[in-house]
Amino acid sequence: MAGGPDAYGLTPDAAIAIADGLIEWVGPASDLPAQYGGCDRQPYGGRLVTPALIDCHTHIVHGGNRAREFEMRLNGASYEEVARAGGGIVSTVAATRAASEAELLASALPRVDALIAQGVGVIEVKSGYGLDLETELKMLRTARALGRARPVHIVTSFLGAHAVPNGMDADSYIDTICLPTLEAAHAEGLVDAVDGFCEGIAFDTAQIARVFDRAHALGLPVKLHAEQLSHIGGTALAARYGALSADHVEYATEADAAALAAAGTVAVLLPGAFYTIHETQAPPVQAFRDHGVPMAVGTDWNPGSSPLGSLLLAMNMACTLFRLTPAEALAGTTRNAARALGLTDCGVIAPGMRADMAIWNVSDPAELSYGIAVNPLHSRILKGTP
Amino acid sequence: MAGGPDAYGLTPDAAIAIADGLIEWVGPASDLPAQYGGCDRQPYGGRLVTPALIDCHTHIVHGGNRAREFEMRLNGASYEEVARAGGGIVSTVAATRAASEAELLASALPRVDALIAQGVGVIEVKSGYGLDLETELKMLRTARALGRARPVHIVTSFLGAHAVPNGMDADSYIDTICLPTLEAAHAEGLVDAVDGFCEGIAFDTAQIARVFDRAHALGLPVKLHAEQLSHIGGTALAARYGALSADHVEYATEADAAALAAAGTVAVLLPGAFYTIHETQAPPVQAFRDHGVPMAVGTDWNPGSSPLGSLLLAMNMACTLFRLTPAEALAGTTRNAARALGLTDCGVIAPGMRADMAIWNVSDPAELSYGIAVNPLHSRILKGTP
Ligand SMILES: [Zn+2]
Ligand SMILES: [Zn+2]
Repeated sequence: MAGGPDAYGLTPDAAIAIADGLIEWVGPASDLPAQYGGCDRQPYGGRLVTPALIDCHTHIVHGGNRAREFEMRLNGASYEEVARAGGGIVSTVAATRAASEAELLASALPRVDALIAQGVGVIEVKSGYGLDLETELKMLRTARALGRARPVHIVTSFLGAHAVPNGMDADSYIDTICLPTLEAAHAEGLVDAVDGFCEGIAFDTAQIARVFDRAHALGLPVKLHAEQLSHIGGTALAARYGALSADHVEYATEADAAALAAAGTVAVLLPGAFYTIHETQAPPVQAFRDHGVPMAVGTDWNPGSSPLGSLLLAMNMACTLFRLTPAEALAGTTRNAARALGLTDCGVIAPGMRADMAIWNVSDPAELSYGIAVNPLHSRILKGTP
Repeated sequence: MAGGPDAYGLTPDAAIAIADGLIEWVGPASDLPAQYGGCDRQPYGGRLVTPALIDCHTHIVHGGNRAREFEMRLNGASYEEVARAGGGIVSTVAATRAASEAELLASALPRVDALIAQGVGVIEVKSGYGLDLETELKMLRTARALGRARPVHIVTSFLGAHAVPNGMDADSYIDTICLPTLEAAHAEGLVDAVDGFCEGIAFDTAQIARVFDRAHALGLPVKLHAEQLSHIGGTALAARYGALSADHVEYATEADAAALAAAGTVAVLLPGAFYTIHETQAPPVQAFRDHGVPMAVGTDWNPGSSPLGSLLLAMNMACTLFRLTPAEALAGTTRNAARALGLTDCGVIAPGMRADMAIWNVSDPAELSYGIAVNPLHSRILKGTP
């Protein structure tokens, strides 16, 4: 995925030299420098080796699930009836507040394990179901604990500006809860980036700007859920703040694409939510291509709009629903996903990069996107360790 | 799934007594007859137990894959360009003819293993990529071999009437190849049911009727790929022949629904193909409900129109894309899937049924359909054996 003569930058019959958890050399096996002649060798029998996959947008730390609400809606309940029965994001907020950190960890671990089993080496995890200081910190601590409990890199995003708690107005929530919580989470070293949900049902651009200003004051990068359900200017705002990524972006425009390109901001496509909520407006993929906006693909694994447990299926959905090419989908879960997280040490197989790789029982990289919930992983290497 | 006060017929705090691979008793644990007091017990900690799932429509025995064609189309190739490059069903026919039985078996086993890992206990497998005597028999022998190689029940369907081989006309293919091959396959005990593809691009109702007549003469039940891409009368034909199932049925009508109901024919919904080919016409689910047509759900796992490796995802897609309820989706992969295969000894948990069960790490059966490519299987029991 570092680039090369074809879309994937494939090297046939390759060798990769690893030392101290880093890639030291990669190229045709016939060109392997003599200095590696005496090293331990691990043959992979002609299998495809890619960078370990990166899921750059998840909400896998949360309490409860929303299966009951899913069933109610399919049995004809209105949104009002679902809300009266305690459904919607408030039910996840209540369940997340009620769960202990140990319970949150226990419920998130199978999700991490499922992603690892698909060759994932980096998982981004957001807060945002606490909407109070205590629970937001609990979620972020749980995210960090996932990275200690399993062989996977966890990147956190503080998403205090996810929803307005019942009975509060958005402005006072931002000022009295969200920003102080961000300060506290940052002081504890829990925040790698700051995220928000810019939407009619959540926060407007002025409110998000206040969160981003505080993030920048703290030296933290920003990213944004933007233009998912309507066009209210989140993408342009993200670009103006030099955001790492603008996520969802179904309703982004050609002008937004130009702004993202100029800012170097990644467009993160999340087809699981598009699929679940029966959205019909696909993101402007051709405009992103035309303007050179890097595109990433994530699961958006969350209990409401995208209970999607497979990054490989997200790749297939990106191709099937958004018409990405399989090469774009793979770049979207490797090179561009790393960029969406501000990571410069993974996502490609090149000297100096971390030796995080996935080995697949396929001969053609297009097979990774072609299968629908088919997992051809052979094995995974993280920091050089199988 | 045997019926009861709620949609699932759930028994809380249940016990199930198994002897000689069959279910002997099921009910509230508090009512367990004294005769079972001394039996070996296996506690399941309050987990959900369902019938083992049944995938009643697959093409998992086939050579090659169509990832290259998937990629070509996403890179803008026309159907003509794909065909010139050897794509389409003819590429699968060529790869299946070229593969040995051992190779077909080796490539199908990971598909079987993936389904077993999702709690599947019965898999239907079709022929239809040979279109010649030798290869059709090879496919069916491979299907039978899968059932010896793994703990799973395999049900075969002869699908000689799948496509017209290049350079032949449909009528002479039916008469000179398809029917003699059916006779030979039946003589070898390889055929549990006879299937066909009734569509403008395949066979018309008169041609399918000739196949069905031969099937009935041999004492074999029939089923049909009907009304997938257009309405040409396959569903009514299937009903007239008392078919076990009519499959796909996106373009079936209210009258077709009435005919299926009168015939006791199951409508098998295959949302993986609907999703892959960007179909917009959903099957007439409400008409099926209104007329009392049993609905089943399958993967249609095949290399072209539905490379879908998850029956759980097919359930989610049936809910999300076709608006089935989670209870209908679960009935569709248990009770009604058994019926679509003519099986009377599985698909429900009731005395006398085979002890094929799936145990799940969920508390609410709706969770099985709610997750997208999430697999909460705890373990599976087949013929009473964990
Ligand atoms: Zn999100
Ligand atoms: Zn089929």
